[in-house]
Amino acid sequence: MKYCHHCAAETVHKIPPGDDKLRHCCEACDSIFYQNPNNVVGTLPTFGDKVLLCKRAIEPRLGKWTLPAGFMENGESSLEGAIRETLEEAGAKLLVDDSSLYTLFNLPRINQMYLFFRAELADLDFSAGAESLEVELFSEEDIPWDELAFPVVVSTLQHYFADRKSQRYPVRMFDVHYSADRKVSTTLISANGG
Amino acid sequence: MKYCHHCAAETVHKIPPGDDKLRHCCEACDSIFYQNPNNVVGTLPTFGDKVLLCKRAIEPRLGKWTLPAGFMENGESSLEGAIRETLEEAGAKLLVDDSSLYTLFNLPRINQMYLFFRAELADLDFSAGAESLEVELFSEEDIPWDELAFPVVVSTLQHYFADRKSQRYPVRMFDVHYSADRKVSTTLISANGG
Repeated sequence: MKYCHHCAAETVHKIPPGDDKLRHCCEACDSIFYQNPNNVVGTLPTFGDKVLLCKRAIEPRLGKWTLPAGFMENGESSLEGAIRETLEEAGAKLLVDDSSLYTLFNLPRINQMYLFFRAELADLDFSAGAESLEVELFSEEDIPWDELAFPVVVSTLQHYFADRKSQRYPVRMFDVHYSADRKVSTTLISANGG
Repeated sequence: MKYCHHCAAETVHKIPPGDDKLRHCCEACDSIFYQNPNNVVGTLPTFGDKVLLCKRAIEPRLGKWTLPAGFMENGESSLEGAIRETLEEAGAKLLVDDSSLYTLFNLPRINQMYLFFRAELADLDFSAGAESLEVELFSEEDIPWDELAFPVVVSTLQHYFADRKSQRYPVRMFDVHYSADRKVSTTLISANGG
């Protein structure tokens, strides 16, 4: 961030008065440009005992399987965003009443937070959107575990199949860590089921 | 947003190729500036049967009581942000192991999402930070209901006192609505307790 959005003056990277963090500031028009984490919202769409996955048509992880998810937009709720992404990437409609927050992942290293909602597919009328190569329903035994795109997807699916045995789905929160060799792991922070 | 952060050229408000939403775009250096919702993270700090509230020293709602909360920053998890805000606004340290996600509020009209975590105070050594006039512990019967700053605070406290009877605290998600006369109401979307 080199120039001010409002007046095009050069910005300064400094700690503003009363703050304790470096911000991009414009000293010409007295603006401060805060940068905050973004939310990625998605669903774990199910139909009977099967789970819907999308094969990615875009980088990163082109060709790998993922749950439908994308950036939450201004003007929508987290659940509305998750439903929209499911429609865009998988052409799939959901039974909204059955949607529940399920997993939350903190990814502080890349300034993101992921939220996945459980949701039942309304019907079997789905098809790959522009960002997907294929969309398919998988039974637990057919999940392509070695071909999943992201650790947040692996973790959400693992907990889902475990929770399904008891039919209890507490909301779980995780921190995602990156090690020096770029291996990624998730740590459960809390599982709030009352 | 009038000028490009990267090259100071004037930006254009248009729908970029492959998108379906208006974005601020720079046609000089081919940049797109996305604007996404911000997260506000906070805690519901308790000590025995009492709840900690802060009297606001800043607008909006100066002089009204609130739970400690503020904008989630880059480089931190949602829970780390909530703990930081509790320390900044109330000088209060928390027993982190006991922190659990409790309420999530979607405020699409103002492009925000609120998350509150339940957390036990580590001790009674707390005091008002720069953004608070006073910090105080309240029993349920002493909560200043008519002097609470925000509907998300009212809703979180109401559910907490109700849930406390059963000692079960499912994660609840709400949408916050604004009516034409600027009255604000919250609607429960899901309560996921397994």
